[in-house]
Amino acid sequence: MVEVPTGTLIVEAVHQAGLDLNIPCGGQGRCGRCAVIVDNRRAVRSRSELRLSQEDLAAGYVLACQTVLEGDVTVTIPPQEKIERRLVTDRTATRVTLPFSYDPKRDQPMQLVPLTIDPPTMDDQTDDWSRLKRAMALNYGISDLTIDLATLRKLGTTLREADWSVTAVVELDTWDRPNGPARLVDLIAGQNVAHLWGAAVDVGTTTVSLYLVDLLRGEVVARAAEYNAQIKRGEDVISRIIYASRNGNLQEMQALVVDTINEVLERACGRAGIRPWEIYKMTVAGNSTMIHLLLGLPANSIRLEPFITTINQPPPVQAAQLGIAIHPQAHVDCLPGVASYVGADIPAGVLGSQMCDSKSVALFLDIGTNGEMVLGDCDWLVSCACSAGPAFEGAGVRDGMRATVGAIEEVWINGQTYEPTYRVIPDPQLEAQGKPTLPKGICGSGLISLLAEMFVTGVVDKAGNLNFDLGSPRIRYGEHGPEYVVAWGNETAHGRDIVITKVDIDNLIRAKAAIYAGFTVMARSVGIDLSTVERVLVGGSFGQYVNVEKAIQIGLLPDLPWEKFHFLGNTSLKGALFALLNREFRRHLTTIAQKMTYLELSADNTFYEAFTSALFLPHTDLSHFPSVAEILAARRTTQSSHFIQGGRPDVHHR
Amino acid sequence: MVEVPTGTLIVEAVHQAGLDLNIPCGGQGRCGRCAVIVDNRRAVRSRSELRLSQEDLAAGYVLACQTVLEGDVTVTIPPQEKIERRLVTDRTATRVTLPFSYDPKRDQPMQLVPLTIDPPTMDDQTDDWSRLKRAMALNYGISDLTIDLATLRKLGTTLREADWSVTAVVELDTWDRPNGPARLVDLIAGQNVAHLWGAAVDVGTTTVSLYLVDLLRGEVVARAAEYNAQIKRGEDVISRIIYASRNGNLQEMQALVVDTINEVLERACGRAGIRPWEIYKMTVAGNSTMIHLLLGLPANSIRLEPFITTINQPPPVQAAQLGIAIHPQAHVDCLPGVASYVGADIPAGVLGSQMCDSKSVALFLDIGTNGEMVLGDCDWLVSCACSAGPAFEGAGVRDGMRATVGAIEEVWINGQTYEPTYRVIPDPQLEAQGKPTLPKGICGSGLISLLAEMFVTGVVDKAGNLNFDLGSPRIRYGEHGPEYVVAWGNETAHGRDIVITKVDIDNLIRAKAAIYAGFTVMARSVGIDLSTVERVLVGGSFGQYVNVEKAIQIGLLPDLPWEKFHFLGNTSLKGALFALLNREFRRHLTTIAQKMTYLELSADNTFYEAFTSALFLPHTDLSHFPSVAEILAARRTTQSSHFIQGGRPDVHHR
Repeated sequence: MVEVPTGTLIVEAVHQAGLDLNIPCGGQGRCGRCAVIVDNRRAVRSRSELRLSQEDLAAGYVLACQTVLEGDVTVTIPPQEKIERRLVTDRTATRVTLPFSYDPKRDQPMQLVPLTIDPPTMDDQTDDWSRLKRAMALNYGISDLTIDLATLRKLGTTLREADWSVTAVVELDTWDRPNGPARLVDLIAGQNVAHLWGAAVDVGTTTVSLYLVDLLRGEVVARAAEYNAQIKRGEDVISRIIYASRNGNLQEMQALVVDTINEVLERACGRAGIRPWEIYKMTVAGNSTMIHLLLGLPANSIRLEPFITTINQPPPVQAAQLGIAIHPQAHVDCLPGVASYVGADIPAGVLGSQMCDSKSVALFLDIGTNGEMVLGDCDWLVSCACSAGPAFEGAGVRDGMRATVGAIEEVWINGQTYEPTYRVIPDPQLEAQGKPTLPKGICGSGLISLLAEMFVTGVVDKAGNLNFDLGSPRIRYGEHGPEYVVAWGNETAHGRDIVITKVDIDNLIRAKAAIYAGFTVMARSVGIDLSTVERVLVGGSFGQYVNVEKAIQIGLLPDLPWEKFHFLGNTSLKGALFALLNREFRRHLTTIAQKMTYLELSADNTFYEAFTSALFLPHTDLSHFPSVAEILAARRTTQSSHFIQGGRPDVHHR
Repeated sequence: MVEVPTGTLIVEAVHQAGLDLNIPCGGQGRCGRCAVIVDNRRAVRSRSELRLSQEDLAAGYVLACQTVLEGDVTVTIPPQEKIERRLVTDRTATRVTLPFSYDPKRDQPMQLVPLTIDPPTMDDQTDDWSRLKRAMALNYGISDLTIDLATLRKLGTTLREADWSVTAVVELDTWDRPNGPARLVDLIAGQNVAHLWGAAVDVGTTTVSLYLVDLLRGEVVARAAEYNAQIKRGEDVISRIIYASRNGNLQEMQALVVDTINEVLERACGRAGIRPWEIYKMTVAGNSTMIHLLLGLPANSIRLEPFITTINQPPPVQAAQLGIAIHPQAHVDCLPGVASYVGADIPAGVLGSQMCDSKSVALFLDIGTNGEMVLGDCDWLVSCACSAGPAFEGAGVRDGMRATVGAIEEVWINGQTYEPTYRVIPDPQLEAQGKPTLPKGICGSGLISLLAEMFVTGVVDKAGNLNFDLGSPRIRYGEHGPEYVVAWGNETAHGRDIVITKVDIDNLIRAKAAIYAGFTVMARSVGIDLSTVERVLVGGSFGQYVNVEKAIQIGLLPDLPWEKFHFLGNTSLKGALFALLNREFRRHLTTIAQKMTYLELSADNTFYEAFTSALFLPHTDLSHFPSVAEILAARRTTQSSHFIQGGRPDVHHR
């Protein structure tokens, strides 16, 4: 029971009642997932009913983010979709190979300095701070040292309780002050301090991952990952920016991601048997929106043309200012980004992959809702970002879903019968009971796989049109036009057919075309042919789940030999780790971020042309995809003639 | 009604009940002013009954700071002593003369920088912060600029709301970073900013005074003063240190002085018609204990041998960290001190009085509970502090009181009749009604005046013994031994006689001897004769109220011609003002504080001898006080012989 003024959004009222309601699109009325049931439709007024069917409306469903209250009403919240997929990155104890040999004295700005200080006497009444500085200058040559008020407040007590035998935790420099001054971060009683801890964090839009690092040995001692708690306020960055830009929500978003960081921190520390406040340094990588929200910076200008960040290279901030539960005076150092849609994860990935150490041209990719990409070698780097939309994340597609339990993640289609086989992300609980996990929908990698199979088997032609001539019962007209049935209702979790519609196919083609057009424009801008690229470095989770062969078949990735593809995993997290361990690497990151040429695609008049040319499977110009041309040619000779009629490459040529 | 565990001090229980109880001695059981009435003596246990008379005890009085609760009891708090004297420094609009001509461009580290910034476009997507820095570097040559998180959080919004026409509030440097980097303290929309405000504060143990300063014109536009709210937790620094060193009390003391600062701030701003958060810089002078408590630093080591501060030269601190209500990102710069008992007020006074600009030797004094003094010229400076005890503040004396309404502040004694005349600090309300203010006690200046008059009229001899041979009814034996009646009960506010006892006189003599011994040892340490001092610079309120002639007569001040004495008023506040206006002055302060030789008197084995020699009126060696010798000689020839018997200079010579 909660009383609210007339005109309050249901989502607000639910919030005020202390309940939680996911709004994956950030309250824009786009996703339909905040639908709730009201018992009195006349007591509410809806701005939009998008994504609600006639049956939904009849059952009393309204969109909580689009409906205001105008009278007394009982709101029923249906069970919320939960993220059930086990995070593969949580717990796995990986040995991370550093791209440098680690010398803590040379590489590490954080130092433990044992100090034996002469106690004051009536003949030497020097104040505590000057006394400590004197010992530091005499014994370690550190003459320019600063102290924060909080550290100053405990200085006298620590010195006396420790009988003037202490260990100073000193930060020698930061990336923005390479010549110091050094900073006294903490003073620990005694001289038996055996450890110095740091943490490297990747704040992903979906997942927050953390390495707990022994700064003396340069080793990852524990890791942990968790879904970013901001997800419930928007699944993609745009939704979150929109949500955060409303009154007061920025603080909430800031708190949500900090809560997640503190959770993974607590978990990793638990595994290593230490306490979070023993951590004296944290580096954070993330896209520009994630970094803005973490720092509590308004992100709205990132979303609006001309797409501007508040800051690409934030100064180090004290943990206490953000609410991060490491040592309050410890610095949280957010790695540098390049532009609104080329965040800190990109320079971190470029540097972590050693892409700029070689003369050979490499392409670095990070594909999600936005494709971020960099082309270059040791002499030049050009980057761009293109908005693929959420199709590869399973959103904006009729039966699309996130890569969680019950999602179809891979599909094979029989070239003779056009019958599909698929693999579902299993529910561990059902698995343990020996029961199968029934599908609920299709996730991004499943959609790519499905589309590629449909194309090479001729279920769709190069324009994405379904071939009704095949005579398969799976190819039919549905509520939204032509569609292909992937799973019949009797084999699904909800009893409804799982389909891919022509509209979905068009969505996917637009998404892949945007990415491929990015490559094209970027390559053209530097006069390079994509086929001359020596290495394709794929970062992020996309590379972990997607089948490259199929991504090439739909024209999402350039058609290069498999051995040129390298899957780097979480380059962002690794970049944060390297930056945590190595001050040279950290400074180099800034140089790279500054040196990278950013290409704004929406301002590039060749982009639209490249995009339009890519709106086919795999592309208007099949010569760019020789391996796909080969498959198609092979199929032509083995398959029935009606396919060739429906799918002949030249039929739809403009 | 409040329930507390057995063993809780009454003062704690009163606090928990949400009531306020003054403990002027900080809870040491010394002053007796926290006496309360309990209805059941068996329910309490007292550690001490010091200062309570038999009648008090019979009436149920106990010391709240020395009595623990062991059962149910009703505690009655008698009306508390209030500070009623109008602060002379509040409101008076003084024109302060600066010791330099003010050029805000050259002298002032705070600058208003109008900026017209190119708005971002699709062709120039530079982030907001880099864009602002670029404009700053291009137009003003400020290339190294930092920003705090709080300022960063409003950067984008301000720039856009102001349509890229803004005024930056920049701090070019601080005393500890004379080469910058510059700091963006705030960003104001538009370019019509006509004012830049600062505040200079003197945090006295008794009074907090503030100047509101126009930093563009170098003018004091308003001033305000208020009693330091810490007084209720201890009247002198030692009491406050003791109180603050108990669990949790440090935060309370910090909050109390910040409350006072915010109160005077609010008042001064009200007079000038501005709001406190428009102030972008604050300088603070004060003794080491006041500065420690303001910063929230433990002060206990100041009190305990070997008397060590946490820091003498604190770094600038952001106002928000202290809770001071000026702009949250504004720096609060505490001026440098020299040692535990030679605080920031001393270098400030020395520099403000231009003492070190001249070849002629000067003595700078600041006398309160502690006498702080500096001797020197442009080439050398030596300082020391001596604990006079609170006698000059009217404490530790039977009828002593603070210089508030009803205090006798000046006394004259008739050389024939030994009858006194006195002046009382008037109550403005009574004055307005044409009624006289009846005396309640004697304040510090009154005590000095009284003792000098008693000495020169022969009421006491050079050892401070009362001369019973005079036959005056005012010279008598009281409860505490010999005493002189200054006011009979029928002429006092409380109906009791106001007296000065032999014990009080001994207290006063010890106090003045400590100060004078300080001069002696300091002069001797540098091989100077006090008579060669060219100027005596008297700072603080002492100089404002004390009669120098009488202070010389009791041997408190050196016997120098009147014209050598200069009363500087609140040198501490002036020092803070000059430091606020002039970065050279501010840096010079640090140099002076560092260069000053500090003499620890308690470690000096000649101090005790000098102190013992000064335990006479005016001194063992009358040759140091030629003007007093002259008065005594004159009196010898005019007065009756029994004085000479009682007061002959050589009688008490060791």
